[in-house]
Amino acid sequence: MAATPNRQFKNICVLSGFTYGKHKEFVEAAIDLGRSIAARKLHLVYGGGNRGLSKMVSEAAFIRGSQVLGIIPRVLKPLGSSSDSSTGEELVVSGDLATLEALMTLASWAHLHIYQKPIGLLNVNNFYDGFIAFLNHAIKNYFIPSNVKKLFICAHTANELLDKLQAYKPEPDPWTFVLERPNHDGNNSRSKKYKLDLTLRL
Amino acid sequence: MAATPNRQFKNICVLSGFTYGKHKEFVEAAIDLGRSIAARKLHLVYGGGNRGLSKMVSEAAFIRGSQVLGIIPRVLKPLGSSSDSSTGEELVVSGDLATLEALMTLASWAHLHIYQKPIGLLNVNNFYDGFIAFLNHAIKNYFIPSNVKKLFICAHTANELLDKLQAYKPEPDPWTFVLERPNHDGNNSRSKKYKLDLTLRL
Repeated sequence: MAATPNRQFKNICVLSGFTYGKHKEFVEAAIDLGRSIAARKLHLVYGGGNRGLSKMVSEAAFIRGSQVLGIIPRVLKPLGSSSDSSTGEELVVSGDLATLEALMTLASWAHLHIYQKPIGLLNVNNFYDGFIAFLNHAIKNYFIPSNVKKLFICAHTANELLDKLQAYKPEPDPWTFVLERPNHDGNNSRSKKYKLDLTLRL
Repeated sequence: MAATPNRQFKNICVLSGFTYGKHKEFVEAAIDLGRSIAARKLHLVYGGGNRGLSKMVSEAAFIRGSQVLGIIPRVLKPLGSSSDSSTGEELVVSGDLATLEALMTLASWAHLHIYQKPIGLLNVNNFYDGFIAFLNHAIKNYFIPSNVKKLFICAHTANELLDKLQAYKPEPDPWTFVLERPNHDGNNSRSKKYKLDLTLRL
Protein backbone atom coordinates (compact mmCIF):
# COMPACT_ATOMS: atom_id res chain seq x y z
CA MET A 1 0.00 0.00 0.00
CA ALA A 2 1.27 3.48 -0.79
CA ALA A 3 2.67 5.13 2.34
CA THR A 4 1.90 8.70 1.32
CA PRO A 5 -0.99 8.84 -1.13
CA ASN A 6 -1.49 12.17 -2.91
CA ARG A 7 -5.27 12.00 -2.93
CA GLN A 8 -7.02 11.01 0.28
CA PHE A 9 -10.36 10.13 -1.28
CA LYS A 10 -12.98 8.51 0.95
CA ASN A 11 -15.38 6.99 -1.58
CA ILE A 12 -14.77 4.71 -4.51
CA CYS A 13 -17.27 3.75 -7.19
CA VAL A 14 -16.92 0.24 -8.59
CA LEU A 15 -18.66 -0.83 -11.79
CA SER A 16 -18.36 -4.56 -12.32
CA GLY A 17 -21.62 -5.81 -13.78
CA PHE A 18 -23.86 -8.67 -12.72
CA THR A 19 -22.10 -11.50 -14.52
CA TYR A 20 -19.26 -13.59 -13.11
CA GLY A 21 -17.12 -14.05 -16.21
CA LYS A 22 -15.67 -17.32 -17.47
CA HIS A 23 -12.67 -17.75 -15.18
CA LYS A 24 -12.35 -17.97 -11.41
CA GLU A 25 -9.71 -15.23 -11.49
CA PHE A 26 -12.46 -12.65 -12.08
CA VAL A 27 -14.35 -13.68 -8.93
CA GLU A 28 -11.13 -13.88 -6.89
CA ALA A 29 -10.14 -10.40 -8.08
CA ALA A 30 -13.58 -8.99 -7.20
CA ILE A 31 -13.38 -10.37 -3.65
CA ASP A 32 -9.79 -9.12 -3.32
CA LEU A 33 -10.90 -5.68 -4.50
CA GLY A 34 -13.70 -5.53 -1.91
CA ARG A 35 -11.30 -6.54 0.88
CA SER A 36 -8.67 -4.01 -0.26
CA ILE A 37 -11.29 -1.23 -0.27
CA ALA A 38 -12.24 -2.11 3.31
CA ALA A 39 -8.59 -2.37 4.39
CA ARG A 40 -8.07 1.22 3.19
CA LYS A 41 -11.20 2.33 5.06
CA LEU A 42 -12.89 3.52 1.87
CA HIS A 43 -16.66 3.68 1.34
CA LEU A 44 -18.00 1.77 -1.66
CA VAL A 45 -20.57 3.01 -4.18
CA TYR A 46 -21.65 0.34 -6.65
CA GLY A 47 -24.36 -0.55 -9.15
CA GLY A 48 -26.57 -2.29 -6.60
CA GLY A 49 -28.11 -5.71 -6.88
CA ASN A 50 -27.07 -9.08 -5.57
CA ARG A 51 -25.57 -10.84 -8.57
CA GLY A 52 -22.26 -11.37 -10.28
CA LEU A 53 -19.02 -9.55 -9.62
CA SER A 54 -20.97 -6.59 -8.18
CA LYS A 55 -22.21 -8.87 -5.40
CA MET A 56 -18.69 -10.24 -4.80
CA VAL A 57 -17.09 -6.80 -4.45
CA SER A 58 -19.83 -5.31 -2.28
CA GLU A 59 -20.14 -8.28 0.09
CA ALA A 60 -16.38 -8.52 0.56
CA ALA A 61 -16.15 -4.79 1.34
CA PHE A 62 -19.22 -4.81 3.63
CA ILE A 63 -18.10 -7.84 5.66
CA ARG A 64 -14.74 -6.16 6.32
CA GLY A 65 -16.37 -2.93 7.54
CA SER A 66 -16.83 -0.60 4.55
CA GLN A 67 -19.99 1.46 4.20
CA VAL A 68 -21.65 0.29 1.00
CA LEU A 69 -24.15 2.21 -1.15
CA GLY A 70 -25.87 0.49 -4.09
CA ILE A 71 -27.58 2.62 -6.74
CA ILE A 72 -30.08 1.14 -9.21
CA PRO A 73 -31.84 3.25 -11.86
CA ARG A 74 -35.61 2.95 -11.35
CA VAL A 75 -36.11 1.50 -14.83
CA LEU A 76 -33.73 -1.38 -14.04
CA LYS A 77 -35.07 -2.12 -10.57
CA PRO A 78 -37.20 -5.09 -11.72
CA LEU A 79 -33.96 -6.80 -12.78
CA GLY A 80 -32.56 -6.42 -9.28
CA SER A 81 -29.19 -5.45 -10.63
CA SER A 82 -27.41 -2.71 -12.51
CA SER A 83 -24.03 -1.18 -13.20
CA ASP A 84 -25.27 2.21 -14.28
CA SER A 85 -23.82 4.32 -11.51
CA SER A 86 -21.42 7.21 -11.68
CA THR A 87 -21.65 8.60 -8.16
CA GLY A 88 -18.28 7.87 -6.66
CA GLU A 89 -15.01 9.52 -5.84
CA GLU A 90 -12.97 7.24 -8.04
CA LEU A 91 -13.82 4.48 -10.45
CA VAL A 92 -12.64 0.92 -10.81
CA VAL A 93 -13.95 -1.16 -13.66
CA SER A 94 -14.01 -4.88 -14.36
CA GLY A 95 -17.03 -6.01 -16.30
CA ASP A 96 -19.78 -6.13 -18.85
CA LEU A 97 -21.70 -4.09 -21.43
CA ALA A 98 -23.23 -1.53 -19.04
CA THR A 99 -19.76 -1.17 -17.52
CA LEU A 100 -18.22 -0.42 -20.91
CA GLU A 101 -21.01 2.08 -21.54
CA ALA A 102 -20.20 3.88 -18.28
CA LEU A 103 -16.50 3.69 -19.15
CA MET A 104 -16.99 5.48 -22.47
CA THR A 105 -19.46 7.98 -20.98
CA LEU A 106 -16.99 8.99 -18.27
CA ALA A 107 -14.12 9.19 -20.78
CA SER A 108 -16.28 11.40 -23.00
CA TRP A 109 -17.26 13.59 -20.01
CA ALA A 110 -13.60 13.79 -19.05
CA HIS A 111 -12.78 15.05 -22.54
CA LEU A 112 -15.38 17.80 -22.02
CA HIS A 113 -14.10 18.51 -18.48
CA ILE A 114 -17.48 17.53 -17.02
CA TYR A 115 -15.75 14.70 -15.15
CA GLN A 116 -12.12 14.92 -14.08
CA LYS A 117 -11.37 11.88 -11.97
CA PRO A 118 -9.23 8.90 -12.92
CA ILE A 119 -10.85 5.75 -14.27
CA GLY A 120 -9.21 2.60 -12.92
CA LEU A 121 -9.16 -0.58 -14.98
CA LEU A 122 -8.63 -3.79 -12.99
CA ASN A 123 -6.94 -5.72 -15.77
CA VAL A 124 -7.61 -9.29 -14.60
CA ASN A 125 -6.23 -11.87 -17.08
CA ASN A 126 -5.26 -8.90 -19.31
CA PHE A 127 -8.97 -8.44 -20.04
CA TYR A 128 -8.60 -4.76 -20.94
CA ASP A 129 -5.50 -5.10 -23.17
CA GLY A 130 -7.69 -5.07 -26.30
CA PHE A 131 -9.60 -2.01 -25.11
CA ILE A 132 -6.38 -0.10 -24.41
CA ALA A 133 -5.01 -1.17 -27.82
CA PHE A 134 -8.14 0.16 -29.56
CA LEU A 135 -7.90 3.41 -27.60
CA ASN A 136 -4.27 3.80 -28.71
CA HIS A 137 -5.31 3.09 -32.31
CA ALA A 138 -7.98 5.83 -32.15
CA ILE A 139 -5.42 8.25 -30.68
CA LYS A 140 -2.92 7.45 -33.45
CA ASN A 141 -5.65 8.20 -36.00
CA TYR A 142 -6.35 11.61 -34.36
CA PHE A 143 -9.90 10.67 -33.34
CA ILE A 144 -9.25 10.79 -29.59
CA PRO A 145 -6.90 13.30 -27.92
CA SER A 146 -3.92 11.65 -26.27
CA ASN A 147 -4.56 13.28 -22.87
CA VAL A 148 -7.72 11.17 -22.43
CA LYS A 149 -5.52 8.09 -22.06
CA LYS A 150 -3.94 9.55 -18.91
CA LEU A 151 -7.32 9.20 -17.16
CA PHE A 152 -7.22 5.41 -17.53
CA ILE A 153 -5.20 3.88 -14.71
CA CYS A 154 -4.48 0.20 -15.35
CA ALA A 155 -3.24 -2.50 -12.95
CA HIS A 156 -3.41 -6.27 -12.53
CA THR A 157 -4.17 -6.37 -8.79
CA ALA A 158 -6.56 -4.43 -6.55
CA ASN A 159 -3.83 -3.08 -4.26
CA GLU A 160 -1.68 -1.94 -7.17
CA LEU A 161 -4.70 -0.20 -8.73
CA LEU A 162 -5.74 1.53 -5.49
CA ASP A 163 -2.12 2.64 -4.95
CA LYS A 164 -2.09 4.21 -8.41
CA LEU A 165 -5.49 5.86 -7.97
CA GLN A 166 -4.44 7.38 -4.65
CA ALA A 167 -1.19 8.62 -6.18
CA TYR A 168 -2.96 10.08 -9.25
CA LYS A 169 -2.34 13.75 -10.00
CA PRO A 170 -4.76 15.36 -12.48
CA GLU A 171 -3.10 17.16 -15.37
CA PRO A 172 -5.37 19.85 -16.81
CA ASP A 173 -5.00 20.20 -20.56
CA PRO A 174 -5.75 23.62 -22.08
CA TRP A 175 -6.55 21.98 -25.40
CA THR A 176 -9.60 20.12 -24.17
CA PHE A 177 -12.93 21.89 -24.01
CA VAL A 178 -14.18 23.57 -20.86
CA LEU A 179 -17.95 23.81 -20.54
CA GLU A 180 -19.38 26.55 -18.34
CA ARG A 181 -22.86 25.68 -17.20
CA PRO A 182 -25.18 28.46 -16.01
CA ASN A 183 -26.80 28.06 -12.58
CA HIS A 184 -30.28 29.27 -11.65
CA ASP A 185 -28.99 32.81 -11.06
CA GLY A 186 -27.57 32.94 -14.55
CA ASN A 187 -23.99 32.75 -13.26
CA ASN A 188 -21.49 30.07 -14.07
CA SER A 189 -20.53 27.66 -11.35
CA ARG A 190 -18.87 24.26 -11.57
CA SER A 191 -20.19 22.96 -8.27
CA LYS A 192 -23.85 23.89 -8.64
CA LYS A 193 -26.64 21.37 -8.93
CA TYR A 194 -27.20 20.61 -12.59
CA LYS A 195 -30.53 19.33 -13.77
CA LEU A 196 -30.87 17.23 -16.89
CA ASP A 197 -34.40 16.95 -18.20
CA LEU A 198 -34.47 14.62 -21.18
CA THR A 199 -37.60 13.59 -22.98
CA LEU A 200 -37.10 10.61 -25.25
CA ARG A 201 -39.45 8.82 -27.59
CA LEU A 202 -38.38 5.19 -27.39
CA MET B 1 -27.21 -1.49 -54.17
CA ALA B 2 -29.58 -4.16 -52.86
CA ALA B 3 -32.46 -4.68 -55.28
CA THR B 4 -34.98 -5.82 -52.67
CA PRO B 5 -34.10 -4.47 -49.24
CA ASN B 6 -35.98 -6.04 -46.32
CA ARG B 7 -36.30 -2.84 -44.33
CA GLN B 8 -37.41 0.29 -46.16
CA PHE B 9 -36.23 2.79 -43.56
CA LYS B 10 -36.40 6.49 -44.44
CA ASN B 11 -34.06 8.05 -41.89
CA ILE B 12 -30.50 7.23 -40.97
CA CYS B 13 -28.55 8.61 -38.02
CA VAL B 14 -24.83 9.10 -38.59
CA LEU B 15 -22.42 9.67 -35.71
CA SER B 16 -19.00 10.62 -36.97
CA GLY B 17 -17.54 13.21 -34.64
CA PHE B 18 -16.03 16.60 -35.34
CA THR B 19 -12.48 15.50 -36.11
CA TYR B 20 -11.16 14.50 -39.54
CA GLY B 21 -8.84 11.65 -38.58
CA LYS B 22 -5.26 11.19 -39.75
CA HIS B 23 -5.78 9.76 -43.23
CA LYS B 24 -7.60 11.11 -46.29
CA GLU B 25 -9.52 7.82 -46.55
CA PHE B 26 -11.68 8.89 -43.58
CA VAL B 27 -12.75 12.12 -45.32
CA GLU B 28 -13.30 10.33 -48.63
CA ALA B 29 -15.43 7.70 -46.90
CA ALA B 30 -17.49 10.39 -45.13
CA ILE B 31 -18.25 12.17 -48.42
CA ASP B 32 -19.03 8.85 -50.10
CA LEU B 33 -21.40 7.98 -47.24
CA GLY B 34 -23.25 11.30 -47.59
CA ARG B 35 -23.63 10.80 -51.34
CA SER B 36 -24.80 7.19 -50.90
CA ILE B 37 -27.42 8.30 -48.36
CA ALA B 38 -28.74 10.87 -50.85
CA ALA B 39 -28.67 8.35 -53.73
CA ARG B 40 -30.95 6.07 -51.68
CA LYS B 41 -33.27 9.02 -50.93
CA LEU B 42 -32.73 8.67 -47.18
CA HIS B 43 -33.03 11.55 -44.69
CA LEU B 44 -29.99 12.20 -42.52
CA VAL B 45 -29.96 12.86 -38.77
CA TYR B 46 -26.53 13.76 -37.43
CA GLY B 47 -24.75 15.37 -34.48
CA GLY B 48 -24.96 18.89 -35.88
CA GLY B 49 -22.13 21.35 -36.20
CA ASN B 50 -19.92 22.31 -39.08
CA ARG B 51 -16.66 20.53 -38.38
CA GLY B 52 -14.88 17.29 -39.13
CA LEU B 53 -16.37 14.16 -40.63
CA SER B 54 -19.85 15.24 -39.45
CA LYS B 55 -19.61 18.25 -41.75
CA MET B 56 -18.37 16.08 -44.64
CA VAL B 57 -21.23 13.58 -44.38
CA SER B 58 -23.98 16.17 -43.91
CA GLU B 59 -22.82 18.51 -46.69
CA ALA B 60 -22.43 15.65 -49.16
CA ALA B 61 -25.92 14.36 -48.37
CA PHE B 62 -27.52 17.84 -48.41
CA ILE B 63 -25.95 18.86 -51.74
CA ARG B 64 -27.30 15.70 -53.36
CA GLY B 65 -30.84 16.31 -52.08
CA SER B 66 -31.22 14.61 -48.68
CA GLN B 67 -33.15 16.32 -45.90
CA VAL B 68 -30.63 16.86 -43.10
CA LEU B 69 -31.37 17.35 -39.40
CA GLY B 70 -28.55 18.27 -36.98
CA ILE B 71 -29.09 17.82 -33.24
CA ILE B 72 -26.81 19.47 -30.67
CA PRO B 73 -27.36 19.10 -26.90
CA ARG B 74 -27.83 22.56 -25.39
CA VAL B 75 -24.81 22.14 -23.11
CA LEU B 76 -22.54 21.56 -26.14
CA LYS B 77 -23.97 24.36 -28.29
CA PRO B 78 -21.14 26.81 -27.46
CA LEU B 79 -18.74 24.35 -29.10
CA GLY B 80 -20.76 24.45 -32.30
CA SER B 81 -20.40 20.74 -32.75
CA SER B 82 -21.46 17.46 -31.24
CA SER B 83 -21.94 13.79 -31.95
CA ASP B 84 -24.34 13.10 -29.12
CA SER B 85 -27.41 12.20 -31.11
CA SER B 86 -29.42 9.01 -31.11
CA THR B 87 -32.53 10.05 -33.01
CA GLY B 88 -32.37 8.11 -36.22
CA GLU B 89 -33.81 5.09 -37.92
CA GLU B 90 -30.49 3.36 -38.34
CA LEU B 91 -26.99 4.16 -37.20
CA VAL B 92 -23.69 4.38 -39.00
CA VAL B 93 -20.58 5.10 -37.01
CA SER B 94 -17.10 6.27 -37.93
CA GLY B 95 -15.49 8.46 -35.33
CA ASP B 96 -14.33 9.76 -32.01
CA LEU B 97 -14.85 9.57 -28.25
CA ALA B 98 -18.46 10.82 -28.15
CA THR B 99 -19.18 8.41 -31.01
CA LEU B 100 -17.76 5.48 -29.04
CA GLU B 101 -19.84 6.59 -26.06
CA ALA B 102 -23.01 6.54 -28.19
CA LEU B 103 -21.94 3.19 -29.62
CA MET B 104 -21.69 1.57 -26.18
CA THR B 105 -24.87 3.27 -24.95
CA LEU B 106 -26.87 1.92 -27.87
CA ALA B 107 -25.33 -1.54 -27.49
CA SER B 108 -26.24 -1.49 -23.80
CA TRP B 109 -29.79 -0.31 -24.60
CA ALA B 110 -30.04 -3.05 -27.22
CA HIS B 111 -29.09 -5.62 -24.58
CA LEU B 112 -31.98 -4.31 -22.45
CA HIS B 113 -34.33 -4.23 -25.47
CA ILE B 114 -34.72 -0.45 -25.12
CA TYR B 115 -33.16 -0.05 -28.56
CA GLN B 116 -33.50 -2.72 -31.23
CA LYS B 117 -32.02 -1.33 -34.41
CA PRO B 118 -28.76 -2.37 -36.06
CA ILE B 119 -25.60 -0.35 -35.46
CA GLY B 120 -23.52 0.04 -38.60
CA LEU B 121 -19.75 0.38 -38.39
CA LEU B 122 -18.09 1.95 -41.43
CA ASN B 123 -14.77 0.17 -41.07
CA VAL B 124 -12.52 2.56 -42.99
CA ASN B 125 -8.87 1.41 -42.95
CA ASN B 126 -10.01 -1.43 -40.64
CA PHE B 127 -10.45 1.19 -37.91
CA TYR B 128 -12.98 -0.89 -35.96
CA ASP B 129 -11.12 -4.23 -36.13
CA GLY B 130 -9.71 -3.67 -32.62
CA PHE B 131 -13.14 -2.78 -31.23
CA ILE B 132 -14.70 -5.91 -32.74
CA ALA B 133 -11.81 -8.01 -31.39
CA PHE B 134 -12.35 -6.61 -27.87
CA LEU B 135 -16.08 -7.28 -28.14
CA ASN B 136 -15.36 -10.89 -29.13
CA HIS B 137 -12.95 -11.20 -26.20
CA ALA B 138 -15.64 -9.96 -23.77
CA ILE B 139 -18.15 -12.42 -25.27
CA LYS B 140 -15.67 -15.31 -24.89
CA ASN B 141 -15.25 -14.36 -21.23
CA TYR B 142 -19.06 -14.42 -20.69
CA PHE B 143 -19.27 -10.69 -19.90
CA ILE B 144 -21.31 -9.77 -22.98
CA PRO B 145 -24.03 -12.02 -24.47
CA SER B 146 -23.17 -13.20 -27.97
CA ASN B 147 -26.44 -11.92 -29.48
CA VAL B 148 -25.31 -8.31 -28.94
CA LYS B 149 -22.69 -8.81 -31.64
CA LYS B 150 -25.41 -9.41 -34.23
CA LEU B 151 -26.47 -5.77 -33.84
CA PHE B 152 -23.12 -4.55 -35.14
CA ILE B 153 -23.13 -4.51 -38.94
CA CYS B 154 -19.64 -3.96 -40.32
CA ALA B 155 -18.54 -3.01 -43.86
CA HIS B 156 -15.64 -1.25 -45.60
CA THR B 157 -17.69 0.92 -47.98
CA ALA B 158 -20.80 3.06 -47.57
CA ASN B 159 -22.83 1.20 -50.19
CA GLU B 160 -21.95 -2.20 -48.74
CA LEU B 161 -22.91 -0.97 -45.27
CA LEU B 162 -26.23 0.53 -46.40
CA ASP B 163 -27.01 -2.69 -48.30
CA LYS B 164 -26.43 -4.71 -45.13
CA LEU B 165 -28.47 -2.32 -42.95
CA GLN B 166 -31.40 -2.44 -45.37
CA ALA B 167 -31.21 -6.24 -45.49
CA TYR B 168 -30.96 -6.55 -41.68
CA LYS B 169 -33.52 -8.79 -39.98
CA PRO B 170 -33.82 -8.40 -36.20
CA GLU B 171 -33.53 -11.64 -34.25
CA PRO B 172 -35.24 -11.37 -30.87
CA ASP B 173 -33.46 -13.35 -28.17
CA PRO B 174 -35.57 -14.63 -25.25
CA TRP B 175 -32.49 -14.68 -23.04
CA THR B 176 -31.97 -10.94 -23.05
CA PHE B 177 -33.90 -8.78 -20.63
CA VAL B 178 -37.15 -7.13 -21.61
CA LEU B 179 -38.02 -3.96 -19.75
CA GLU B 180 -41.67 -3.00 -19.52
CA ARG B 181 -42.05 0.70 -18.88
CA PRO B 182 -45.31 2.00 -17.41
CA ASN B 183 -47.08 4.79 -19.33
CA HIS B 184 -49.09 7.59 -17.74
CA ASP B 185 -52.16 5.34 -17.44
CA GLY B 186 -50.17 2.78 -15.51
CA ASN B 187 -50.19 0.34 -18.42
CA ASN B 188 -47.16 -1.02 -20.18
CA SER B 189 -46.47 0.12 -23.70
CA ARG B 190 -43.30 0.00 -25.76
CA SER B 191 -44.16 2.94 -27.99
CA LYS B 192 -45.23 5.46 -25.37
CA LYS B 193 -43.38 8.67 -24.64
CA TYR B 194 -40.83 8.01 -21.93
CA LYS B 195 -39.57 10.83 -19.76
CA LEU B 196 -36.17 10.70 -18.11
CA ASP B 197 -35.70 13.20 -15.32
CA LEU B 198 -32.15 13.01 -14.01
CA THR B 199 -30.73 15.29 -11.38
CA LEU B 200 -26.97 15.18 -11.18
CA ARG B 201 -24.53 16.91 -8.89
CA LEU B 202 -21.50 17.55 -11.07
